[in-house]
Amino acid sequence: MKNTIEDLAIFGGPRLFSKSKPIGQLFSPDADSYLSQLKKAFNARHLTNDGEIVRTLENELAAFHEVEHCIALANAGLGIIMLIQLFSEGRSGEVIMPAFSYRGLPHFAQWAGQTPRFADVDPLTHGLAPNSVAAAISDRTTAVLGVCNFNHPGNIDQLSQVARDKNVPFFLDSVYAVGSTYKGKILGSFAEAEVYSLHATKLLNGFEGGYITTSNAQIAALLKWQRNFALPALRPNCPGTGTVIGLNAKLNELHAALALLSIRQINQIIEENHKKFKTYTSGLKNIKTLSLIPYAEGERANYQMAVIELLDDWPLTQKQTVAVLRSEGAAITSYYSPPLHLSEHCPQFLEKPSLPVAEALARKFVQLPVGELTGQEDIRSVCGFLSYLDEYGEEISRRLFQQGVL
Amino acid sequence: MKNTIEDLAIFGGPRLFSKSKPIGQLFSPDADSYLSQLKKAFNARHLTNDGEIVRTLENELAAFHEVEHCIALANAGLGIIMLIQLFSEGRSGEVIMPAFSYRGLPHFAQWAGQTPRFADVDPLTHGLAPNSVAAAISDRTTAVLGVCNFNHPGNIDQLSQVARDKNVPFFLDSVYAVGSTYKGKILGSFAEAEVYSLHATKLLNGFEGGYITTSNAQIAALLKWQRNFALPALRPNCPGTGTVIGLNAKLNELHAALALLSIRQINQIIEENHKKFKTYTSGLKNIKTLSLIPYAEGERANYQMAVIELLDDWPLTQKQTVAVLRSEGAAITSYYSPPLHLSEHCPQFLEKPSLPVAEALARKFVQLPVGELTGQEDIRSVCGFLSYLDEYGEEISRRLFQQGVL
Repeated sequence: MKNTIEDLAIFGGPRLFSKSKPIGQLFSPDADSYLSQLKKAFNARHLTNDGEIVRTLENELAAFHEVEHCIALANAGLGIIMLIQLFSEGRSGEVIMPAFSYRGLPHFAQWAGQTPRFADVDPLTHGLAPNSVAAAISDRTTAVLGVCNFNHPGNIDQLSQVARDKNVPFFLDSVYAVGSTYKGKILGSFAEAEVYSLHATKLLNGFEGGYITTSNAQIAALLKWQRNFALPALRPNCPGTGTVIGLNAKLNELHAALALLSIRQINQIIEENHKKFKTYTSGLKNIKTLSLIPYAEGERANYQMAVIELLDDWPLTQKQTVAVLRSEGAAITSYYSPPLHLSEHCPQFLEKPSLPVAEALARKFVQLPVGELTGQEDIRSVCGFLSYLDEYGEEISRRLFQQGVL
Repeated sequence: MKNTIEDLAIFGGPRLFSKSKPIGQLFSPDADSYLSQLKKAFNARHLTNDGEIVRTLENELAAFHEVEHCIALANAGLGIIMLIQLFSEGRSGEVIMPAFSYRGLPHFAQWAGQTPRFADVDPLTHGLAPNSVAAAISDRTTAVLGVCNFNHPGNIDQLSQVARDKNVPFFLDSVYAVGSTYKGKILGSFAEAEVYSLHATKLLNGFEGGYITTSNAQIAALLKWQRNFALPALRPNCPGTGTVIGLNAKLNELHAALALLSIRQINQIIEENHKKFKTYTSGLKNIKTLSLIPYAEGERANYQMAVIELLDDWPLTQKQTVAVLRSEGAAITSYYSPPLHLSEHCPQFLEKPSLPVAEALARKFVQLPVGELTGQEDIRSVCGFLSYLDEYGEEISRRLFQQGVL
């Protein structure tokens, strides 16, 4: 622990963590059972194009999400691009998305020939605000993309209603809600489709990869065709094929084998996360200048993230807080900051709307270390360190200010 | 061998090949050395984002191609999409591409916000015809995409000159020429950049994957940034970043480890291919109604494909030839047929140009089985079977015609 300000790593003291503590899940399976799975695929010489492991994974994920169709993909970003392209039906228009979300989104819309249109978010769920979406929908809208956040999947029912009323497709990026429920039902079958990532930093880990769940058989058929170059010989017998643009977005056995080990251990992973979240809860409860964002009440959650809100009395700026923690070896960031409409990923030609909730939220939050590489003892250290910042933060902030860290 | 027409599988006889004979390389490394490579990556917990194996692969590929930069990617299709997007500099225009080529190309242009514009090809190299490209270039042109074919890398010097004269970027999809030379120099450093696939069916096998080679440091820096979401914090210090759209197109260690085993064995793979090609050459030389497409004289080649031209006297149609061979267990296809401007992958809104060379070539060629799953004995069987078709083809063609196979 730190005794004086000079002990802070940012002022030249030793780091709190010699090994970096990340903000992703980074689940690591037993290497031997993974490699023996792979060996089977090798021997069968079937490593891509609907191999047995991919099909098993799709079936197990569909069962887990209680949904009819699961389409495995090379990554989730491609999944979002593909759905936007499908829903556009060859038109060039706008995709409505939350301004308070992760950086990739605006570029995904552009890959699919659409312009991002940012809507404001709800101050409680941090997801799309239905009234802001309703106001943004126009003749140019080709889809509404909602993002389920870790703490709450969002106002899904209201958003679905708004989209239905305006006859616009609505789909979800649900990866942060994997395993969570909305009104008691597990995520996976809401909206037109839901996209999930299998990146190593996510709860389910295929190192890379992603998948889409849907209860719409037509969307499922189109996606399966689209992910394999939309080959003419495989054209499905359903409407909507005329405007589909194909690409290679297949998941192969190497990734599916890992994801399969991961989905089969999801309950243990969540349980472990929950224990760590409880340690954060008790370790931070006496710090009155910050608050740990809670998970939605009365729902199941995956406890994969720990994000704090810096209250008005917290003595450091958001940027200073991040800088101080990073220098100690906590590989953390601010949470969804800057908001997308003010970020470098916003197309330059776009007029910047004023989205006050997104702008306010983006100044408040900091992500804390979690996942497999962050142990209970590490969490207690983070909490102790935040306590120290709470107490001595004014002086630290002054020193940082002098050094140009605002 | 077949004694009577009834012995043909298409008329109910037994198949020539009980196990399907493909047209791809399908190199399979020693599973144990692959898995032990992977285990190292597992233990290092570094499986993506510039891992050690990816960096080694990039270095070895750059050395192999005698080029300064190699950027490994999740797949080659994404590489083509990325380059088209880079070269467009935010404009929405046309990408000139050969009409006689593989099916994915037109959709790749569309993903990058461009319209494909098809040019005719050269009857000898089967690649872009420089005069057709010169005629197609306009103010709307954002790039020219040449494809190196297996038999000849194309008129690269003339095409580069045409593009330079009109101030339009020119790049190559060179996968079919991997290891081949153009005017004595190995492919890899021609045009603005070259794209290669690491798909299992290609000469170099990463199961999935691809890479781009370039001697242009700016293009290399932009691609490395673009493949990792174009994250603001990683923006390279060079011109051109303002219009780049990012995505996840990283190659990970699982694929890189396999590709590495493959590149280290490329000489043996090519030697093996060469032996098989010689067997085709001698086995087909007495059939006067077809001709095996030769590899460019005086150049190194990879001998990865065997494609025959059906001459005027060949008794079956192209479609009948494919159908008969496929029913025998040869998993073959016609070669680049239909031409892209007449294919389902041509955007519906496009006016179809008349491209006589591409149209003529697309009616002539059939790919024969090759690669690791096709042995010398299989090749002799194919040659013997084609001899049989040459002799009894008229009757077979009549029977097929009656069955509706035209």
